[in-house]
Amino acid sequence: MSASRLAERTEARAETISGVWCPAITPVDDKLAPDVGRFVAHGRWLLEHGCHGLVVSGTTGEANSFSVEERIDLLEAALAAGLPRERILVGTGMCALTDSVRLTSHALSLGVAGVLMLPPFYYKGISDEALAASFDAVIQRVGSSDFKLFLYNFPKLTGVPITPGLIERLLETHPNTLAGVKDSSGDWQSTRTLTERFPELAIFPGAETLLLPALRIGGAGCISASCNVNPGAIRALYDAFQTGEDDLDQRQDNLTEVRKILELRPMIPVLKAVVAHGRGDFAWRRVRPPLMALSEVEAEALVAELASRGFRFGA
Amino acid sequence: MSASRLAERTEARAETISGVWCPAITPVDDKLAPDVGRFVAHGRWLLEHGCHGLVVSGTTGEANSFSVEERIDLLEAALAAGLPRERILVGTGMCALTDSVRLTSHALSLGVAGVLMLPPFYYKGISDEALAASFDAVIQRVGSSDFKLFLYNFPKLTGVPITPGLIERLLETHPNTLAGVKDSSGDWQSTRTLTERFPELAIFPGAETLLLPALRIGGAGCISASCNVNPGAIRALYDAFQTGEDDLDQRQDNLTEVRKILELRPMIPVLKAVVAHGRGDFAWRRVRPPLMALSEVEAEALVAELASRGFRFGA
Repeated sequence: MSASRLAERTEARAETISGVWCPAITPVDDKLAPDVGRFVAHGRWLLEHGCHGLVVSGTTGEANSFSVEERIDLLEAALAAGLPRERILVGTGMCALTDSVRLTSHALSLGVAGVLMLPPFYYKGISDEALAASFDAVIQRVGSSDFKLFLYNFPKLTGVPITPGLIERLLETHPNTLAGVKDSSGDWQSTRTLTERFPELAIFPGAETLLLPALRIGGAGCISASCNVNPGAIRALYDAFQTGEDDLDQRQDNLTEVRKILELRPMIPVLKAVVAHGRGDFAWRRVRPPLMALSEVEAEALVAELASRGFRFGA
Repeated sequence: MSASRLAERTEARAETISGVWCPAITPVDDKLAPDVGRFVAHGRWLLEHGCHGLVVSGTTGEANSFSVEERIDLLEAALAAGLPRERILVGTGMCALTDSVRLTSHALSLGVAGVLMLPPFYYKGISDEALAASFDAVIQRVGSSDFKLFLYNFPKLTGVPITPGLIERLLETHPNTLAGVKDSSGDWQSTRTLTERFPELAIFPGAETLLLPALRIGGAGCISASCNVNPGAIRALYDAFQTGEDDLDQRQDNLTEVRKILELRPMIPVLKAVVAHGRGDFAWRRVRPPLMALSEVEAEALVAELASRGFRFGA
């Protein structure tokens, strides 16, 4: 992409977010209820260790395993405890229209940076026209177009892809609302297409394995689960790109090696096990069904594999 | 299956339900809120036109498009209006553990015949062990094993199959709770395997296209969306099988022909269009996003196709 084109798109999306954002894992107590104290402490730690911002109630936060009320309570408690609203995106896309409206209205009433919305994901084979009508219904009911909407593309879990055609429809009807996309397809062709085709949007790959290639074509950064354990190194690559360092590929390779180890087992239990080990706090290992915590043996093997790669928690 | 084997399994599941059950469609008003008046009238009509019972908040009822509160209110209103609780199953399986517990506890507190539970369907690749732990957690938290649990297998929408291995685990831990399976796989091999392998359970194929083959190997009946428009003919095949009529295959063929027409377009909008036409009440056509109502042209073509096959609404 030419320098002038890059400058143009940066200007076009000057008011949207960018950088390294962490979909924060949600600790739970021994009743499996959200543990606000540990959540807030972890959020602060993430912001201090390199994350530009946090996603509350993302996939990695097990959001879909919690009720609407539990999600509302967690966000309120996190803000009340001082997590900065302007550095928080909130996951609000639900199967039920009324739930999406309620969560979105709630998050916006608290002044967060924006919302990250899954499409309604129960039915399959929904057309772009129908999905656009569905997002439109949420925006209309929320009753404010003065917010930043980030679409969340995660077809492996939802079975409902966010297509360029859908994005075009929403850009036509809600140009001031649609602000970006988190693309968790894991498919570089998908992320590249979105980034090149929609320069007015902030496009975030859903894993840091695509951070450098995304930045090189004007991507906004990344929103990645791994930030829960590896925020410093991910941020360092982002900063090194901005300042034009010459070790970018090596940094990307190092991030990708760590990510590959994290991906050997189910991601959310893995992240909780690494945080538990890093803090010496085994309460962090708990997950809500249907997820299962790693066994002791698995957790020890994981930590050893990471250590063998020179991984240091939070560094 | 031998007569003695059939008798044995009938005895084993004497207390569970059987027959023709309709996952009732949910009418909505012009604000897209559940329309209790039309819902109750439709439920009565279904019970009078051949259905042994109703599923409230099934897939066909667009349950996942409504909030937990909307689902609770609909069930309470339906029972308050006189729909018979012993002829009602309630869909209560949600992504969030706490939602599944709340809906199940609520339904059981009202004395319904049982609950029909989807697995938590956001995460994919969940093991049988983890799914069993998830259902176990719901049952433990509900705090009563004195209820009838029907598992709901709909892998095309959930991406989370209910396997024979999962059923075996739950039969071991909760033999008095697990009562049956609705198998909406659409795969006869799947329905046959479940029916033959678990004679103590009531196995319902999720469509009447498999009603006769299922009854012939000891299946419990069917729980089918088509019952919303074709309850009489489906019930007539069920009864004809019980009394040993000699036109069973012809009856099955007729049902299957009608079903094929219903399946040409998205099922829920199709059923609502047929009910709207059958009653001359266009309010019935409304659906909640992300579904879309059929266009006038589509609805007219559908009704004409059905009429050409001799289909009569409700007959």
